[in-house]
Amino acid sequence: MATQGQVITCKAAVAWEPNKPLVIEDVQVDPPQAGEVRIKILYTALCHTDAYTWGGKDPEGLFPCILGHEAAGIVESVGESVTEVQPGDHVIPCYQAECRECKFCKSGKTNLCGKVRAATGVGIMMNDRKSRFSVNGKPIYHFMGTSTFSQYTVVHDVSVAKIDPKAPLEKVCLLGCGVPTGLGAVWNTAKVEAGSIVAIFGLGTVGLAVAEGAKSAGASRIIGIDIDSNKFDIAKNFGVTEFINPKDHDKPIQQVIVDLTDGGVDYSFECIGNVSIMRSALECCHKGWGTSVIVGVAASGQEISTRPFQLVTGRVWKGTAFGGFKSRSQVPWLVDKYLKKEIKVDEYITHNLNLGEINKAFDLMHERGCLRCVLSTDI
Amino acid sequence: MATQGQVITCKAAVAWEPNKPLVIEDVQVDPPQAGEVRIKILYTALCHTDAYTWGGKDPEGLFPCILGHEAAGIVESVGESVTEVQPGDHVIPCYQAECRECKFCKSGKTNLCGKVRAATGVGIMMNDRKSRFSVNGKPIYHFMGTSTFSQYTVVHDVSVAKIDPKAPLEKVCLLGCGVPTGLGAVWNTAKVEAGSIVAIFGLGTVGLAVAEGAKSAGASRIIGIDIDSNKFDIAKNFGVTEFINPKDHDKPIQQVIVDLTDGGVDYSFECIGNVSIMRSALECCHKGWGTSVIVGVAASGQEISTRPFQLVTGRVWKGTAFGGFKSRSQVPWLVDKYLKKEIKVDEYITHNLNLGEINKAFDLMHERGCLRCVLSTDI
Repeated sequence: MATQGQVITCKAAVAWEPNKPLVIEDVQVDPPQAGEVRIKILYTALCHTDAYTWGGKDPEGLFPCILGHEAAGIVESVGESVTEVQPGDHVIPCYQAECRECKFCKSGKTNLCGKVRAATGVGIMMNDRKSRFSVNGKPIYHFMGTSTFSQYTVVHDVSVAKIDPKAPLEKVCLLGCGVPTGLGAVWNTAKVEAGSIVAIFGLGTVGLAVAEGAKSAGASRIIGIDIDSNKFDIAKNFGVTEFINPKDHDKPIQQVIVDLTDGGVDYSFECIGNVSIMRSALECCHKGWGTSVIVGVAASGQEISTRPFQLVTGRVWKGTAFGGFKSRSQVPWLVDKYLKKEIKVDEYITHNLNLGEINKAFDLMHERGCLRCVLSTDI
Repeated sequence: MATQGQVITCKAAVAWEPNKPLVIEDVQVDPPQAGEVRIKILYTALCHTDAYTWGGKDPEGLFPCILGHEAAGIVESVGESVTEVQPGDHVIPCYQAECRECKFCKSGKTNLCGKVRAATGVGIMMNDRKSRFSVNGKPIYHFMGTSTFSQYTVVHDVSVAKIDPKAPLEKVCLLGCGVPTGLGAVWNTAKVEAGSIVAIFGLGTVGLAVAEGAKSAGASRIIGIDIDSNKFDIAKNFGVTEFINPKDHDKPIQQVIVDLTDGGVDYSFECIGNVSIMRSALECCHKGWGTSVIVGVAASGQEISTRPFQLVTGRVWKGTAFGGFKSRSQVPWLVDKYLKKEIKVDEYITHNLNLGEINKAFDLMHERGCLRCVLSTDI
């Protein structure tokens, strides 16, 4: 390709400072170094973690940066020693890497690969501990090892899932974060069994994906909890069978749920990121076996708490990141499931804009009826 | 038997008020009613839960009462419809019942039988919601459904484990609480695998039983943590391979352990009942899979807390009661393991006294070198 080995100048949305509108800039994207892949991003969605960092609430957030971590594109070029993808491959960048070599990958117990975290955690690439992005010579930090709010990005090869080229990138970009997180929380982390009673706190994209996962696992009752009662209609399509609005009750929500379920639910999922709801989610679980999974990301510094008696009497408290999916191995499998119509994706996309309209897309996240907004990078 | 159907007057240690010395009284023990068993207690040990309630720290503690829940004896008589034990059977009273009929017992997921809890939680018997103990006509509350600090006690039939009569009662009385709690925390709740690294906070009887369980599960490193360094010598006999005294370190103990273990332990066990140690026990676990089990009983009203990030990055927080053992089914199995020399029991007994010396036995619990004190009821 003509661009291979060259610096590419393209459009990207740069977050210069927390809480200030992103600016579409001409960004220079360096060629990939050893073990790196440069990807032409075609579609990217927004997720609440982008908004969280952009809002300045992430103490590890570095500025200026290029946000974005839920996307799909085509490999433009690869650096030395990259063997598993080549130019032209359709790919989904994965903020959760999978190297298959580290202690974590080899454990068989977790998807939390540690290979590139020391770099992606501080907005740079492993090889030379520098950024591949700059604007007029000023380096711009990477974000989550993905930085997909750009027409081109550079990622580590252990962070690239090669997918079936038949998959529509404008849809499967969602398989980079929210949908797998919800499905995997049910399938991998909680391992919900048929007949289970499930409670889901927060009916955004992740919560709805939890509902879909619970339905496919054969849950007998799927209780959705949200302070927006309008969400129930949509949620039904994803498997939610009952709806509770905490505002309709004087009792603590955990007590409402315990009363409704003869002692509590078998599994609960917190998909909001609110530490007091995390406690409710644990405490609405059935004594003896109820398991609560934290899926939402809480604000920095906040803590969860409960009486130890809750655990001593058999409840289990756990959490999940990217739904426990091994990214490079399992994102392609999820894409195949989508192509076989075994999982929903299209149904989460409520808005389509282009990268130039990204600030509008951030605003939309807080609006009723918005699940996922997919941005085309074609501006 | 001559006493069958009659009120028995015998000696028992009555806790008239919190924190006041127990008084050996002539207590009237009513005959067992339907579904009840009257047991001649021969040996009883003391456990920290007895001291906890006696000390007035248990908000559900009721006075006057007869404490004690780790004991062994012989069935004196049975009430109507009791089919599984008969007079003369050697038994261990179990504070955790097992009815095999309730939602909990049938779940296959927990040992927390619910059948008699509504009575045992408030110091009475199910059948007529009254106590079987009295002193000169004044009712004395039951405790934990066992009340073993008495020459005779009455318990629900679902709370009686029938054991091999060859087992020495002065030893196997310990299989009523502490030893099974520790072993089961490892075998049933954590399910420690061979090669695991284990941390144990608190090297009393329960902590040592955790060590023994971990050793038999094939743990590769068993790290004991205690503020009394003298305990290491004894702990080695139970399987502890390394010892840390938090007083020897400036860094938080969880950091000391993470540094020593290349990222944290696979399993940790809190055997003290201190909520801040519970946090340390969670946070010394390895990212991705480390599991922490709360075994100790915290003071009423205290809460555990941590950052949710600890769970989102793969740690699991759980607890255990009676080590997850199904009491009636598995206590006899533990007795058999003891008879086959597959588990230790004798080694936990550091003192022997008789029931008349019970206040001295309470004092001993706080002394160095005391694990379990077994009281003969023959006074």
